[in-house]
This record gives sequence, C-alpha cells and structure tokens, in this order.
Amino acid sequence: MTAHFTVLAKDSVSKARLGRLVTAHGAVETPCFMPVGTQGTVKAMLPRDLREIGCQILLGNTYHLYLRPGHELIRELGGLHRFMGWDGPILTDSGGYQVFSLGAMRKISEDGSCFQSHLDGSSHLLTPEKAVEIQEALGSDIAMVLDECIPHDATRDYVLSSTGRTIRWAERCLNARRKPDQLLFGIIQGGLFEDLRRWCAETMSSLPFEGFAVGGLGVGEGEARLHRIGAFTVDLLPQERPRYLMGVGRPQDIISAVRAGFDMFDCVIPTRNARNGTLFTWQGKVNIKRAEFAADPRPLDETCGCYCCRNFSRAYLRHLYVAGEILSSQLNSLHNLYFYHRLMDKCREAIRVGRSELWPQWNEPGTAT
Amino acid sequence: MTAHFTVLAKDSVSKARLGRLVTAHGAVETPCFMPVGTQGTVKAMLPRDLREIGCQILLGNTYHLYLRPGHELIRELGGLHRFMGWDGPILTDSGGYQVFSLGAMRKISEDGSCFQSHLDGSSHLLTPEKAVEIQEALGSDIAMVLDECIPHDATRDYVLSSTGRTIRWAERCLNARRKPDQLLFGIIQGGLFEDLRRWCAETMSSLPFEGFAVGGLGVGEGEARLHRIGAFTVDLLPQERPRYLMGVGRPQDIISAVRAGFDMFDCVIPTRNARNGTLFTWQGKVNIKRAEFAADPRPLDETCGCYCCRNFSRAYLRHLYVAGEILSSQLNSLHNLYFYHRLMDKCREAIRVGRSELWPQWNEPGTAT
Repeated sequence: MTAHFTVLAKDSVSKARLGRLVTAHGAVETPCFMPVGTQGTVKAMLPRDLREIGCQILLGNTYHLYLRPGHELIRELGGLHRFMGWDGPILTDSGGYQVFSLGAMRKISEDGSCFQSHLDGSSHLLTPEKAVEIQEALGSDIAMVLDECIPHDATRDYVLSSTGRTIRWAERCLNARRKPDQLLFGIIQGGLFEDLRRWCAETMSSLPFEGFAVGGLGVGEGEARLHRIGAFTVDLLPQERPRYLMGVGRPQDIISAVRAGFDMFDCVIPTRNARNGTLFTWQGKVNIKRAEFAADPRPLDETCGCYCCRNFSRAYLRHLYVAGEILSSQLNSLHNLYFYHRLMDKCREAIRVGRSELWPQWNEPGTAT
Repeated sequence: MTAHFTVLAKDSVSKARLGRLVTAHGAVETPCFMPVGTQGTVKAMLPRDLREIGCQILLGNTYHLYLRPGHELIRELGGLHRFMGWDGPILTDSGGYQVFSLGAMRKISEDGSCFQSHLDGSSHLLTPEKAVEIQEALGSDIAMVLDECIPHDATRDYVLSSTGRTIRWAERCLNARRKPDQLLFGIIQGGLFEDLRRWCAETMSSLPFEGFAVGGLGVGEGEARLHRIGAFTVDLLPQERPRYLMGVGRPQDIISAVRAGFDMFDCVIPTRNARNGTLFTWQGKVNIKRAEFAADPRPLDETCGCYCCRNFSRAYLRHLYVAGEILSSQLNSLHNLYFYHRLMDKCREAIRVGRSELWPQWNEPGTAT
C-alpha cells in the first residue's frame, strides 16, 4: 500500500499539522471534522448539502447499522456509500462505544461484548472479528478496532485490565481484516492514567495500523483532564500516521486538540444542538428559542456565508423552532455543520500560513445577541 | 391594472386552458399546483429545493401565520416572501377554512367568525376586513376573500343562507382592499346545489375580482360529486380570469379538473402523504414502509428524475422511514412535490400540443411493486 497519509506542513507555534489522508473514496485534508451519520444519514442533511458546506468525510455507526437495516443487507445493496448516496470517504466506528452507552445488559469477556439491542432486546455478541466483518460489509474507507470505552471514574485495576483486553482485541482485529483498501485504526485507551496511556500508545504504535485514535475522552472527565490526557497521549503517537480524537467535541476542544497534534474529529454536538435550537456563531452560542429573537431581523451570524444565514432571519429561525417545523432542524443543522467546517478551514489555514493570530477564536459559554 | 391573466391556448378535446398569470413576484404558467406552506414553510423543503423541482407559486395559511408569529411581525420583517426566503409568487388563503376546521368554539355571524386559537385558546374575530388586512400585511401576491366552507351534508336552507353571507363578505373584502398590486380572488360556494352554485358564481363574476375560486369541494362529498359540481361551476366562471379549485387534491382529481377548465390547485396531499410514507409514482402509489421494500435496490420510480430517485433505493427510503429519520420526510416530500409538478407539466404540454394521448394517466388505488 502506498503512503495513505502525508504531513504537508507543521505549525511553528504549536504541534498542529496540516495533512492529507488518502482513502479509497478520495482524499481528506486534515485537520478535519466528520459529521456523524448514525443511522446511514447525517440527521436532516441531504448528501448534496453536506458536499456544499465542504464536508469531506462522514462517520457511520456500526452498532446502529448492524442492528438496522443490517450490515449484510447494506453489503448486498452495494455498501454504505451507495446505500446512503455519499460517494466521499466514510469512517465507521467499531460499535463498541454504542454497546457500552446504549446496549442493555451488556457483558464483557475476553471473547467480546454481549449486549441486548436497544431496539428489540435481541441478544448479540460483538467480537473483534465481528466488528471487522461488519465494517468490511459496510465497505467504509476507515474501520476502527473494537475497544472498550472506559468510564472516566474507573479504578486503576479496571483500566489496566480493560486496556490490556483492548490491546489484545486490536491484534485480533488486525488478524481478521480481509479488505486491503480499508484502512484500520487502532484506539488508545488507558483512562486518566498517564502510564497506562503510554503503555497502550506504545503497544498500539508497534502494530501495523494506518492510523491511531484516542478514545475514552470527552466522557465526563472535565475539560482540564480532557486536554491534558489528550495532549499527553497524542505526543506518544507516530508523526507519520493520522491521529483521531474520538467523539470530541466543542469548538474550543477541537481547536485545542488540533494545536496538540490531532488530525481528525467527530462529534454529534453540531447536529444534536441544532435540533435543540442551540446554534454556533463566531460571536458565541445562540439559543434560538429565546423570546429576544422573536422580532430580530438579523441573520443568525452576519459573518456567516451559509445558506441559512444568507436567506433567513433570527425571527424566522425562532418561529420555525417554536412551531416545531422540520425546516428548523434542516436549517439549524446546515448552519452548525457549516460553522464546524469553517472552524476546520481556519485551523488548516492558520497552520498553512504559520501565523498564530489566524487561529480561530471561540469561547464558551456566551450567548450572542 | 394591465391584464394579469392570459389564456395562451385552449385544448381541442377538453375545456382545459394553458394560461399565464402575472403577479407582483413574477409570472405563473397555468395549470399550476401550489405546495402548501402552512406555517411559513412547505414542510421539510428548503426554498431552493422548491425552485429546483419547478415550483412556481406557494400557498400560505393566513390562519396559522396570524396566530403565530403574527401578521404584524411578518409585515415588520418585510413581508412573508422575505420572512420565508421565497421570492416567487405566494397566494394566501383567507383563514376561513382553518377557522372552521381547527378553531374551537367558533361562532359565525354577519360580522365575521369568532373562534378560539387551537394554540392557546385565545379568542379572535375574523371579519372580511380583517382577512384582507392580514393578507395585505403578509404581502401575498394573491389574496382570497373570507368565505365559509360549508360542510357537504349541510341542508339547503343552511347553504342558501351561508352562501348569501359569503357573497356579502366578498363585497366587503373588495371594499376593504388597499393594496393595488395584490390580486384578490372571489370564492364560489353553494354546496352541492347547482342552482345555488349558479347564483353564487354569477354574482361573484359580476364583481371586480382578478380571479375566482371554487370552494367547499373535496370535503367528503365523494369523487363523483366533486367532479360533477366542480365541472358545473367552473363553466359558469369568466373565461378571461384564472379559476382555482381549492384544496383538491389527488392526481386524478387534478387531471379531471384541469380538463374541466380549472387553472390552479393546492393540496396538502403530496407533503402530508410524504411524511406518512405514501409516495406517488407513475406506476401508482407506493407505501414505502412495507416489508417488501426492505431489500429493494431499485429507485422509487425508475422513470422519475428527482434527486431522491436519482440517488437512493427503495430499501434506503424504507430504512429512513422505519428509523424515524428526518431525511425520510425530506426525500419523500421532495419526490412527491416533484411528481405533482411533473403532473402539471404534462397537463400543460398536452394542452399546448393538443394531443389527447399526451394527457397524464394516473389511477388510484394501486400499489406499484
């Protein structure tokens, strides 16, 4: 396989990198953000609208697609790209995270993770080999190894034992892969213990993965520990491989993590917040349901070039939200994802030009008015 | 005012007409279909997607916009076009229909109609003058007079008395209008009684309206009476004015009404059915939630050129519906409205070319497979 990842430039004032990740469905400029397409759709977004806002790569959830409509069906229908009408790159998670957060009665063993479907209560066993098989059936460009996402307050004994299993599962995933054009990323666990993170990072780095992710962060440990453990761990990973901070997060977390050396991000925040009426602007967060916007003729963000801000007022967006209109979710999602993609544009531009004043500024909390 | 409506061609084998209706926001080729934008949005459709499918004119609901966000607010924000980001023609109804179908505790008198809001129970009086005032505040291109939509099983005495009041209300609307560039249409009531329809049509036709609508049909009277009374009434209306059949309806009803001489239509069927998973194809109706489509790789309608049919399989559309995804409503609405607009294209083409075999064929019921 030719080099799938190239570091094009390094920032002079931080550890940030500008990179290019080549996949079977095209190249991705990094640092990049991946909108979450849980059930084979980024909620409320047409694929063509994702393209328009500059989306380069999506994330698909193995757990959801495995349960419904089923990975075998998606394989028969030509794979996930064709199924959901997206011909760009797709990364799939392993399903592990949802098993732990959604699956009832889960029981973890060396073999894998037994869980009951959140849809119908049916029992399933997710092993490392099964996670690879499902992701190969989906045909994603990047697959993730099965891991256990450890609660942030787990004991050291538990973290030690779980992380050891995650390493063994990662080796089993490598042995199970059959699809040469699908990249496979290892995941670093180790909780909040630096020595365990180091052990996991060094062991994973010795294995032939095409990229590495840091998991188990953004799960309630708080901002300080997220940034500290994230920065500590990313430093232990190979320079010549893409580094993905899973499930994080808020704009300020992403900026900080890019400067620490991470290349890839995913999070449900822009789309979930959109549906709840919380919108990101360069002046801060806006809760569009507030009465103060009822007669506000201004666009949500006067500095934003998205379809929503070019065509509609805050008063209209509030009306749609209050009236429970589907268009509310559509326009809000479009705007928030546009914001996140411009955030990544700005990060890449700051690295490319090498001027620290170009880094995007974004502070939370704060409501723009 | 210059002539706002021109009959461009008449069909040789039916009473259908090809026409051009000029409004303050542009011209409309007739026969035309108006998607319903109840609360200032055609549900689940971006305005640019409405443009793309060939939508020429929208319908806005005065009752809903009056109650929320309020017509004065919309006026302050620059009118309904600007509020909802649609710069093409808009027709508003008078609010009367929703007062009768949604408003609680309604009480009708010569003055107007008293009703309680379905949102908060607040009391309101809708008079002919108020209906004109609201529609002028909204700034629609075409306003409708206040009328009473009579139940199909009303007694002759009631229909006689109600229709007389509708005529007096229409005259009051004419006297109340202040906006010279807003067209005003009269509405023909008269129930299922041909002599009362004739009386109403002849009286309304003597008044200086820019167009005429036939109301009180498609309200449960059945297909045979809908077609009979519709065809009878449209024949009594001036040739040189646009004729609008309100709230009708199914594709076969529209084809029949176009051939009877109607020019304009609106109905919630394409968008409401879309959200319920019922889709229109040139092979019949498809209930996309059926298990038979679970693994069907074909597009919904292989003969359809819409974004939905060009990019997605029936299996995917079924998955989105079953999973309760917002994208289901988006793609289904886009398709059904595309279908309705192609239906109108075909009607116009059949009249233009003057060949009866070009008329669209569409039969219901029937499920395509």
